[in-house]
Amino acid sequence: MLSILEKWKLIETKLICSSSFLKVFDDKVMLPNGKHITFTKMELIDFVSVVPVTDNNIVMIEILRYPRNCLSLEIPSGHVEKGETPKDSAVRELKEETGYSAEKIECIGRFNPLSRSTQQAHLFLAKNLTKGTQQLEATEQINVKLVPIEDIKEMLNSLKITHAPTIIALQKFLLMQQETQS
Amino acid sequence: MLSILEKWKLIETKLICSSSFLKVFDDKVMLPNGKHITFTKMELIDFVSVVPVTDNNIVMIEILRYPRNCLSLEIPSGHVEKGETPKDSAVRELKEETGYSAEKIECIGRFNPLSRSTQQAHLFLAKNLTKGTQQLEATEQINVKLVPIEDIKEMLNSLKITHAPTIIALQKFLLMQQETQS
Repeated sequence: MLSILEKWKLIETKLICSSSFLKVFDDKVMLPNGKHITFTKMELIDFVSVVPVTDNNIVMIEILRYPRNCLSLEIPSGHVEKGETPKDSAVRELKEETGYSAEKIECIGRFNPLSRSTQQAHLFLAKNLTKGTQQLEATEQINVKLVPIEDIKEMLNSLKITHAPTIIALQKFLLMQQETQS
Repeated sequence: MLSILEKWKLIETKLICSSSFLKVFDDKVMLPNGKHITFTKMELIDFVSVVPVTDNNIVMIEILRYPRNCLSLEIPSGHVEKGETPKDSAVRELKEETGYSAEKIECIGRFNPLSRSTQQAHLFLAKNLTKGTQQLEATEQINVKLVPIEDIKEMLNSLKITHAPTIIALQKFLLMQQETQS
């Protein structure tokens, strides 16, 4: 068994698809065994997701997700825009999608949504909230929903929540709660 | 506030990129306000991830992830091949990537990895394991690692694990453990 796995060597990269948020590349790479393969990789913009917590509720959003064309119950999320830190983006997305501003906002995690991309997702916990008004983009249809913290575990178990960043952030929140209680 | 959000109407779809595992489409859609926009959607193959549990350990894999070109500590995962149920795929991927076979294998969750795709990920818990030999594909470099269950929470908290399906499945496993203990 290898203690350190050998890296792949990039020989040639070719852009095969490009849109405002996605680039797809076919990379010709050499494997440690000398074999050449083509590996399709994706370039996607980093994003943030925020768990906004009041005394008894999580501030969630109900958003229409195309192409599934169904409603999805999620926490506020969005891209890290040019010139922003992930924390800047978390503050902005929370305000835009829910109207709420937070006195305290701290990073509680980070993950890679896709193995075929270097994209990173940053998770934040937002506390001491003040209510304001949403600032939605033209394509955004969003209802703000206050979800009791005591209902979150059941909503996760019954698969009412299927948005990956929301699941990771809310499960992390529940595990943090249990740490402080134990 | 809308109680039910209005759906988007597809006017025209155009394939802009195609590879063995990914198709990208530009969809011309009409928003509820009558405005036309182009929305880029991705078609990806469903996959499974499996939490293989022994008395004290989780059977994990150390795998080289290109394009980050770094080692990633994950649970066994893989695509749902044509003709397979997600459970079939879980049994197969567990055997191929770790060598282990499971007497009991049950679904513990499901999620949507990407908002721009209808792709689904299915999570399984595998118990009563029997050790065998790996059956790796040519491109796969995988080391099997037995990780003590008591170390999982710290490994998640310290961001040693960044693979989204692995995080969701292991957090779920920890929350299930706490339910049975409480």
